[in-house]
Amino acid sequence: MTSQFVFDFQNRGSLGSDILGGKALGLAMMTQLGIPVPPGFVATTEVCGIYYREGRRLPDSFWAEFDVHLVQLVQLEGQSGKRVGGLDDPQLVSVRSGAPISMPGMMDTVLNVGLNDETVEALAVRTGDRRFALDSYRRLLQMYGQVVSGIDKTVFDHELDTVLLNSGVPTPIELSEEALEALITAFKGAFVDVTGEIFVQDPRDQIRNCLIAVFESWNGKRAETYRQMEGISGDLGTAASVVSMVYGNLGENSGTGVCFTRNPSTGEPGLFGEFLQSAQGEDVVSGERTPEPVSAMSDKFPAAYAELIEHAETLERYNRDMQDIEFTIERGKLFILQTRNGKRTAQAAVRVAVDLIEEGLLSKEEALMRVEPSDLSQLLSPQLPEDHGMDVVARGLNASPGAAVGFVVLDADTAESRAAKGEHVILVRPETSPDDIHGFIAAEGILTAKGGLTSHAAVVARGMGKPCITGCQALEVDLEPRVITIAGVQYSEGTLITIDGTSGSVIIGEPELTLVSGSAGAELDRLLEWADSIRRLKVLANADTPIDAENARRLGAEGIGLCRTEHMFFGVDRLPKMQAMILATNLEDREDALAELQPMQSEDFFGIFSEMGQDPVIIRLLDPPLHEFLPDRSEVDSPAVLRRIDELSEVNPMLGMRGCRLGLVYPEIYEMQVKAIADAAIETHASTGLWPKVQIMLPMVAFPSEMESIRANVERVLRDRSVPDVQIGMMIELPRTCVSIGDFAGSSDFFSFGTNDLTQTTLGFSRDDAENMFLGKYLEDGILEENPFETLDVAGVGGLIDFAVNALDYKAPDVSLSACGEHGGDPASIKFFHEVGLSYVSCSPFRIPIARLAAAQAAINSR
Amino acid sequence: MTSQFVFDFQNRGSLGSDILGGKALGLAMMTQLGIPVPPGFVATTEVCGIYYREGRRLPDSFWAEFDVHLVQLVQLEGQSGKRVGGLDDPQLVSVRSGAPISMPGMMDTVLNVGLNDETVEALAVRTGDRRFALDSYRRLLQMYGQVVSGIDKTVFDHELDTVLLNSGVPTPIELSEEALEALITAFKGAFVDVTGEIFVQDPRDQIRNCLIAVFESWNGKRAETYRQMEGISGDLGTAASVVSMVYGNLGENSGTGVCFTRNPSTGEPGLFGEFLQSAQGEDVVSGERTPEPVSAMSDKFPAAYAELIEHAETLERYNRDMQDIEFTIERGKLFILQTRNGKRTAQAAVRVAVDLIEEGLLSKEEALMRVEPSDLSQLLSPQLPEDHGMDVVARGLNASPGAAVGFVVLDADTAESRAAKGEHVILVRPETSPDDIHGFIAAEGILTAKGGLTSHAAVVARGMGKPCITGCQALEVDLEPRVITIAGVQYSEGTLITIDGTSGSVIIGEPELTLVSGSAGAELDRLLEWADSIRRLKVLANADTPIDAENARRLGAEGIGLCRTEHMFFGVDRLPKMQAMILATNLEDREDALAELQPMQSEDFFGIFSEMGQDPVIIRLLDPPLHEFLPDRSEVDSPAVLRRIDELSEVNPMLGMRGCRLGLVYPEIYEMQVKAIADAAIETHASTGLWPKVQIMLPMVAFPSEMESIRANVERVLRDRSVPDVQIGMMIELPRTCVSIGDFAGSSDFFSFGTNDLTQTTLGFSRDDAENMFLGKYLEDGILEENPFETLDVAGVGGLIDFAVNALDYKAPDVSLSACGEHGGDPASIKFFHEVGLSYVSCSPFRIPIARLAAAQAAINSR
Repeated sequence: MTSQFVFDFQNRGSLGSDILGGKALGLAMMTQLGIPVPPGFVATTEVCGIYYREGRRLPDSFWAEFDVHLVQLVQLEGQSGKRVGGLDDPQLVSVRSGAPISMPGMMDTVLNVGLNDETVEALAVRTGDRRFALDSYRRLLQMYGQVVSGIDKTVFDHELDTVLLNSGVPTPIELSEEALEALITAFKGAFVDVTGEIFVQDPRDQIRNCLIAVFESWNGKRAETYRQMEGISGDLGTAASVVSMVYGNLGENSGTGVCFTRNPSTGEPGLFGEFLQSAQGEDVVSGERTPEPVSAMSDKFPAAYAELIEHAETLERYNRDMQDIEFTIERGKLFILQTRNGKRTAQAAVRVAVDLIEEGLLSKEEALMRVEPSDLSQLLSPQLPEDHGMDVVARGLNASPGAAVGFVVLDADTAESRAAKGEHVILVRPETSPDDIHGFIAAEGILTAKGGLTSHAAVVARGMGKPCITGCQALEVDLEPRVITIAGVQYSEGTLITIDGTSGSVIIGEPELTLVSGSAGAELDRLLEWADSIRRLKVLANADTPIDAENARRLGAEGIGLCRTEHMFFGVDRLPKMQAMILATNLEDREDALAELQPMQSEDFFGIFSEMGQDPVIIRLLDPPLHEFLPDRSEVDSPAVLRRIDELSEVNPMLGMRGCRLGLVYPEIYEMQVKAIADAAIETHASTGLWPKVQIMLPMVAFPSEMESIRANVERVLRDRSVPDVQIGMMIELPRTCVSIGDFAGSSDFFSFGTNDLTQTTLGFSRDDAENMFLGKYLEDGILEENPFETLDVAGVGGLIDFAVNALDYKAPDVSLSACGEHGGDPASIKFFHEVGLSYVSCSPFRIPIARLAAAQAAINSR
Repeated sequence: MTSQFVFDFQNRGSLGSDILGGKALGLAMMTQLGIPVPPGFVATTEVCGIYYREGRRLPDSFWAEFDVHLVQLVQLEGQSGKRVGGLDDPQLVSVRSGAPISMPGMMDTVLNVGLNDETVEALAVRTGDRRFALDSYRRLLQMYGQVVSGIDKTVFDHELDTVLLNSGVPTPIELSEEALEALITAFKGAFVDVTGEIFVQDPRDQIRNCLIAVFESWNGKRAETYRQMEGISGDLGTAASVVSMVYGNLGENSGTGVCFTRNPSTGEPGLFGEFLQSAQGEDVVSGERTPEPVSAMSDKFPAAYAELIEHAETLERYNRDMQDIEFTIERGKLFILQTRNGKRTAQAAVRVAVDLIEEGLLSKEEALMRVEPSDLSQLLSPQLPEDHGMDVVARGLNASPGAAVGFVVLDADTAESRAAKGEHVILVRPETSPDDIHGFIAAEGILTAKGGLTSHAAVVARGMGKPCITGCQALEVDLEPRVITIAGVQYSEGTLITIDGTSGSVIIGEPELTLVSGSAGAELDRLLEWADSIRRLKVLANADTPIDAENARRLGAEGIGLCRTEHMFFGVDRLPKMQAMILATNLEDREDALAELQPMQSEDFFGIFSEMGQDPVIIRLLDPPLHEFLPDRSEVDSPAVLRRIDELSEVNPMLGMRGCRLGLVYPEIYEMQVKAIADAAIETHASTGLWPKVQIMLPMVAFPSEMESIRANVERVLRDRSVPDVQIGMMIELPRTCVSIGDFAGSSDFFSFGTNDLTQTTLGFSRDDAENMFLGKYLEDGILEENPFETLDVAGVGGLIDFAVNALDYKAPDVSLSACGEHGGDPASIKFFHEVGLSYVSCSPFRIPIARLAAAQAAINSR
């Protein structure tokens, strides 16, 4: 706690925004830089704290200090003859809020404080503009009335409308002096009517009341809601500044405006903003008049414009970031009223960061820290403009970013056939399963009623970089008749809809989409190259097909960290053979079906090896339960098939017959897969002279004996075919594996944490169920702060990972340790993976840029 | 490695059974005790190792040492004029196997070694019984032929049958000398026919060959299979003894027998066994003659009998355990051929242990270690006799021990109605669910086609102490028409069957059952009292009803460690109300239904509190997913109910909306339960003047915020009703909870590991699926050695428990830590729980005695 409650702008010492609030700090900082700002002083955030602690009152000692500064302000301005309430040249002030963290528009400000029935005439005399003085007075009555006296806005609107109607003009700016006098009389009457008291005439009392009103607005409904949303503490409090008024509305040689020092949409250098001649700040915002671009000042106010450009440069240089500036010209003299770091799009963030490095304002490390990794997804997919102006009929989970437009189709076959005719389609399903895969390929985007952020639909769509919304609870999908119902309204199949996977919004019809500007590409590439030079964590891709592999390379993957072989079995030519294999009731039939699948799988591997050259390709053998490959019970007639489906059905398939358990119960499946890998490696070697860098990874390993048994078989197949140097490793997906990892050191060549499954088992959360059943409520009620399937649960899952990493570091210090799964593309999780010392993360191709940047930030953070 | 390969029985030094084998050690020990055993020597197990390491040969240095001992043996016996191969009084020997760990009947032995065409006549002269000598020779030919020369048994059987036929007598004992001569000639012919060589005539070569044959039998198929089954290492090797022959078949003043020093079925003191006059050992076993009880010797061989009783006492005293003794009387002189600790039933084990303490032979600690805790389950339920003589038509998992007989019923309602008429019924279902609970109550036993050892049926049956078989794969249950099919044969509902939950056997019809003998009860009580005085780990019960509570107290529980409140909702009067609560679509309807359930639940709690007095009662609030309470989809017509069932259905219910998640999404459910607990406590206090020792436990807690939120509500309800001193704790059922347990130290008053769920999540094994889908194969193939749902996985689940215990010991050293669940009644798991320092285990009432004994053994082991 400081012993001083009030500070002049020119004398702030070393105090920061925590005490002064952002607005006053900016004004004080500009004062110190010699930039023209109106003089003033600030009552600190601590005063706000005292106000509430003392039961909504302020001690006399504060008011004594306050008055000293108020007198000094008057004396300072007294050089130009003004004084508060003075009749020859009255000093008017604004009383402004300003919190430590910017809360734009959420708290109150009152302008023109100090006017009363007498000073209004003095102002008229001094400015030679009685209309201006009257207009300023009616503005004060209106703002003070609303903010300090709590009179409803509609009361003033009603009086204004009456006067406008009587005068026969559309806007207040056209009102005559007489009409303004009538308005002032009406407004003053409203004070008596509503509050029972006349409008306070003492300028000093006006200022005191406004100060209290600013502190009160800290706990107003708007401010509280905003703080809750943004996670800002209610203990911070706001500061309140008393600032000399300057007037942009003193005739044609006055004006006001706001500008960014660079284009906030694209990042392009140069002032970008708006300007209004003869206006006060609120006129720019209100939309009653149309502002000109700030560049128009070069003609009308050449000197002030040149000065603005110079100050903008000074402020950018001082703050080392793009600025958002408010300014006013009072009779030709420029005043800067506010500056702050400007909000910007992802594209602009990248461009500004790169430019600021080149301009020598930032180091690479600083610039890299300025871009939010998750915003990069905006740059990699089409986006719905914020002001699309169409009704959002439903919201779901934002499962995969980007927007897509297309005709509703209700099954994968229809998606495929309509897409084949060149139509854009959106696949809309209750939920999806692996046999919808051709529908994913055909569709522009996917919308499901059920499922969470890591449901099948979400994972596959993200892997393909397609927009996807899951868990859209207002949606019902009926296949008989073929309609969807959204919030009670039916739409038939074939309706044109738009989905925005970035926000989770569903829209009927087609808005215009803004696509990624190509110009961000080059800057992004440079930023990511710098990121690459700084990060320690390697970034590999989850890629299952040659096309995935191509995307992965293009986006900067250093190899394939997870190639899920099961996705290869869902092709139209493969699924029947896979099903025949599963339905086989004896080994011979099963081996026959596998023999047919083997050359197809081998062809897939050859394509991937060809794409990846000498970068590593880590292939995971079959993982999901076999029943995922079988048709739905309702689509089957054959009793034998039904029986087999029942045999394979499980109460909790996630904890059942899957992963390496499959490979132990049906060794012939893994044997086929390893043969296919070996054959593809041999073919690659034959055509390029080089062996691909293949690694074979086993899923869901819980016991060393599982690993040892399968490893012996894999090695035998590789030896039989003379394929050299294939590492055999395992995923760490189970708590048991983490806690006993030392026992695996001898039998596994490398390890990769499968954090999706590890999260499920560690937390006991089924990702198929948790998000729909209780996770939403947990996040709403604050039981959880993050969805653990998006951002790694560091205390729980991270604790197990940390334990395992340390145990392995002791037993096998040189072994490769990594993470693959959805968390591999999440910045907060990447930070943890860096800190715990993994060698790489593997994520969906379209998250590779995010991961590259996040890995660099993690490296910078831990320096 | 010793430098000596061969040891005389009277000179074994301090060598143990690892070197000498069990048989030779027993003979040497008896020699040292002055008990009459035939003289002999032993080639050690190390010789067996050398034999295999040297490529199935033995070095000359060994044979040199061997010959010295052989000559000594002859000289020793030479006092009575015998020598090996000698013509005046030939010294015959037996060559016997003997492993460090008893493998009864699994390896070979050859008797009468040393006979040939010449010595057989010498033996005839010396014994004055040429028939005897010839019979001994044909026995040697037969055993040597099979064991050493590998001639098939059928060859000898065929020759014997021919001679018997020609002689017109039914058994060899009646053959004339001439017939025996013919038989010997035929047998010798068989050697030439099968092996191409004549029967070895040199007695020394015979002995050498037998020795090699004994070593070979160590790796015979029988021995290998047995070792695999019993987990005996193949590296141990067998010793081989050469022992002078004594003859029980030298006429009426000779004989042979086997006896236990106490009754091996009941433990009653006194010799118990069988005796045959004029016979060799194999005659007792072969069943061709019917032996007399050993007590018959008191008339026929009074001196030898007195001597046998004296030696039996000496041997019991020396070995400090009940002995299993083989003996022979050769012309009035008693020889003891073998002694070992006798196998016994659980009842005998308890009786013997208690008696040996009282006889001063054992300390309490030693006696307690002699009883296998899991065998006690035999004493607590009716058992099927081993020789029930009926066909086992199917086998399933031995889910709950004991045997039961009854008529097949296919649903719980039928079970209830037929039981109400006084019929005994067995509930036979594909699987069971909580709404079958009245069927469990009505049935004598339960049989299911699906499910594992921890399936619903298994857990509930064990809890009730009823026999149960689960996972009976040969069984199909058809409700339309109402029949079951076992291995292809149909049986209609109402068929009388017997199930043996101890072995997992299913039998059609009704064998006679042996019930627990009442006489074991008193000894068991005394043994368990001693166990109680020694154990540190407390034993509480899982009990859900007043009846469970009564059983728990009777069997020695020190409180209720887990009262599962969900079981209270399945009563016929409650289920409809519970369903109404679940089907409610708004809070008001839900609260109405809960208000009706509350007094019923309160009544249950009052009953339990009344039974348990001042012992602790730990009540777990509702845990299972709500859909478990709803009827099967196929039994429902109402679209609204169907929709709600679909809403509540989950892909992986085990990882879904259950445990404290229910309490957070529907706080009114837990609120009702806590009100019911509070009301029951108030009623108890009103009637007894004492508050029950209630503790409230929350299931499936993963995050401290879950605990804190629910705890606040629970405390509020208790405060509102002024119920004092209720501890609020949580289960540790998730890996996340283990790894971050320190974060819960402030919000939980006590902790109990729920090892069933913790095993599921740690291993990623669904207990509903794993046992049917892959766990069986894992156990078969040796991927796993134990079913982790029966015996705690110490390296994995135990690792997490150990981690959590240490973390809590640091953060909250005085907090109570325990385990509840199936492992709480498993001896190996109890050992771990003791070692890791838990304060109590809680298990099914019928496992309480097992747990008491196992806890004492764990305490003794860790001294």
